Amino acid sequence: MTAPVSGPADRPERPVRVVAFGGGHGLSASLRALRYTSAEVPLEITAIVTVGDDGGSSGRLRVERDALLPPGDLRQALAALADEHPTAQLTATVMQHRFVSMQEPGAVPLQPVVRGPRLERRADRSKDTLAGHTVGNLLLLGLMEMLGDPVRALDHAAAMVGAHGRVLPMALHAVGIEADVAIGEPDRPDELVTVRGQHSVAVADGRVEALRLEPTDPPACPQAVQAVLEADWLIFGPGSWYTSVLPHLLVPGLARAIVASRARRLVTLNLGTDRETHGLSAAEHLGTLHRYLPELRVDAVLADVKWAGEPEPVRVAASRMGAELVLAPVAVADGSPRHDPEALGVALVPVLGAAR
Amino acid sequence: MTAPVSGPADRPERPVRVVAFGGGHGLSASLRALRYTSAEVPLEITAIVTVGDDGGSSGRLRVERDALLPPGDLRQALAALADEHPTAQLTATVMQHRFVSMQEPGAVPLQPVVRGPRLERRADRSKDTLAGHTVGNLLLLGLMEMLGDPVRALDHAAAMVGAHGRVLPMALHAVGIEADVAIGEPDRPDELVTVRGQHSVAVADGRVEALRLEPTDPPACPQAVQAVLEADWLIFGPGSWYTSVLPHLLVPGLARAIVASRARRLVTLNLGTDRETHGLSAAEHLGTLHRYLPELRVDAVLADVKWAGEPEPVRVAASRMGAELVLAPVAVADGSPRHDPEALGVALVPVLGAAR
Repeated sequence: MTAPVSGPADRPERPVRVVAFGGGHGLSASLRALRYTSAEVPLEITAIVTVGDDGGSSGRLRVERDALLPPGDLRQALAALADEHPTAQLTATVMQHRFVSMQEPGAVPLQPVVRGPRLERRADRSKDTLAGHTVGNLLLLGLMEMLGDPVRALDHAAAMVGAHGRVLPMALHAVGIEADVAIGEPDRPDELVTVRGQHSVAVADGRVEALRLEPTDPPACPQAVQAVLEADWLIFGPGSWYTSVLPHLLVPGLARAIVASRARRLVTLNLGTDRETHGLSAAEHLGTLHRYLPELRVDAVLADVKWAGEPEPVRVAASRMGAELVLAPVAVADGSPRHDPEALGVALVPVLGAAR
Repeated sequence: MTAPVSGPADRPERPVRVVAFGGGHGLSASLRALRYTSAEVPLEITAIVTVGDDGGSSGRLRVERDALLPPGDLRQALAALADEHPTAQLTATVMQHRFVSMQEPGAVPLQPVVRGPRLERRADRSKDTLAGHTVGNLLLLGLMEMLGDPVRALDHAAAMVGAHGRVLPMALHAVGIEADVAIGEPDRPDELVTVRGQHSVAVADGRVEALRLEPTDPPACPQAVQAVLEADWLIFGPGSWYTSVLPHLLVPGLARAIVASRARRLVTLNLGTDRETHGLSAAEHLGTLHRYLPELRVDAVLADVKWAGEPEPVRVAASRMGAELVLAPVAVADGSPRHDPEALGVALVPVLGAAR
């Protein structure tokens, strides 16, 4: 562990400024963990979110309404930071509410207390154009259309859920994600296929050999750059490595800020491999960070003892980037490869507290 | 004007309980006026809203997703009661934001600060399934689907905009509105045509001879019944007379409460006739209230001096229902037949204050 920069006597009053990078479920787990950590170590949290999602509701909003940003991952980050007051929690819950298809049995999740007569044109239910969208995605879309400024839109949505922290996009507009993938056909083991779209990259069978954004130089969000420059800690991961964690390093303005920032850097490793990183070891996950941003120095790597297995290769890979390996039990109890927010939050207390 | 029930010395501390009936723009004007009135006379406001809307966004949500209630008029009432704090106002404004068609020129109302590359599947913009919906309608739909209880859904939406008052539906599920209309063909002057659907009734050419709900006995909202029974004042109108004002009198449980309530009753007349009441005089507007709820006693009728014209017929019609006619300048300055909320609110001060 890095040594404290100051003793308890001259401990500064201001909270520790933490920036968490990611997208989707991984970032959500990281932010929920930080909410636990903040009970012990006062934190000022900023989430910086990938904007490459082209699947599901977000993808449809990009196609059908030229959505400035894909709202899904931003919405999840906001929900993770929501205040615990019942009103704020209910707002966060309805933002997460997804309109299920009316054509499936048991479509409406909760039975209404009473149901009225249906209109005669009921046959038109076959249209059911809302199915798949979440309320929060449509709210964020409306705010972005109305205000024309994604940061103002996100700050207002954050106020609506009493968010303990700020949610910002990594870039000012949606980007495409594409990858060269070695599909590993027996007769053509080295053949690369270019896979376009975050969703396609995430589910591609094969080894990702190169990752790119389209365009290659999207404008970084200025408030995100500022948060990185003023941070005490930058946290990378957990999350889908190629589609949620590494894309931040490919936004030139953001990458420069990450390198320039005086913040310490923590990498929270995943608890297993998913489809896009199949076969990539924990040590190799760290290697990809170095590959896409060679100047990146890391101070700490947090891993669960179970997935890291024999920790020596991870420790070596970490120390190559300047980082100490911290092992802690951070997985959920049921054995699935997901972080337990409370356990992760507890594990982060000594790490983030040491910056004070 | 009715005499005060108590002198200043023993004036009760509690606010005057006001129930406003209506739907759409008319109710919205009434509620915005009451917000002005409440600066002088502390009010506890409950809006009871028609649930017959089958047009536009609300109609599509009834057809496509079996929406328990058509959300449009409920949303407008919530926006009218929103707190003036900028955060609450912005939430109310985005609830009112309507997704315009992406296929029309100038589709997105405000220019975003930056625009990203469009996805290749841009041709799919022809789907644009959100066009016409408002953010607030989709939020209310999500809350109703998630909670299954329209009153809890509305109370939460009210909390989200810091509403100064409560918004309730007149019935627990959506209803149909139908009317027998004398279309007045020269060769068949007395022929009646049955017009089905609130929207069709509102735009039907001809004299409405009979108005019905479908079903004829929808369950009244219990919280609305309770508010009526506990009210100091019940306010009917302004608004589309057949499709927003009279429907409340056709919900049996609500009509019984209106008759049984010890509250005083105010009718705020419209400022002109619209398509559905074409040819109906101000006095005849009052007559329709008597026709659909003969037991209805009225204490005060508020009319703008311009539209009432020669006030004597209106005064006679009012006094037949037991009411005093109050004339005041309540129209907007530009001459269009709309109420000015501030002027209406000022005119209501002596009326509602007299109940104390």
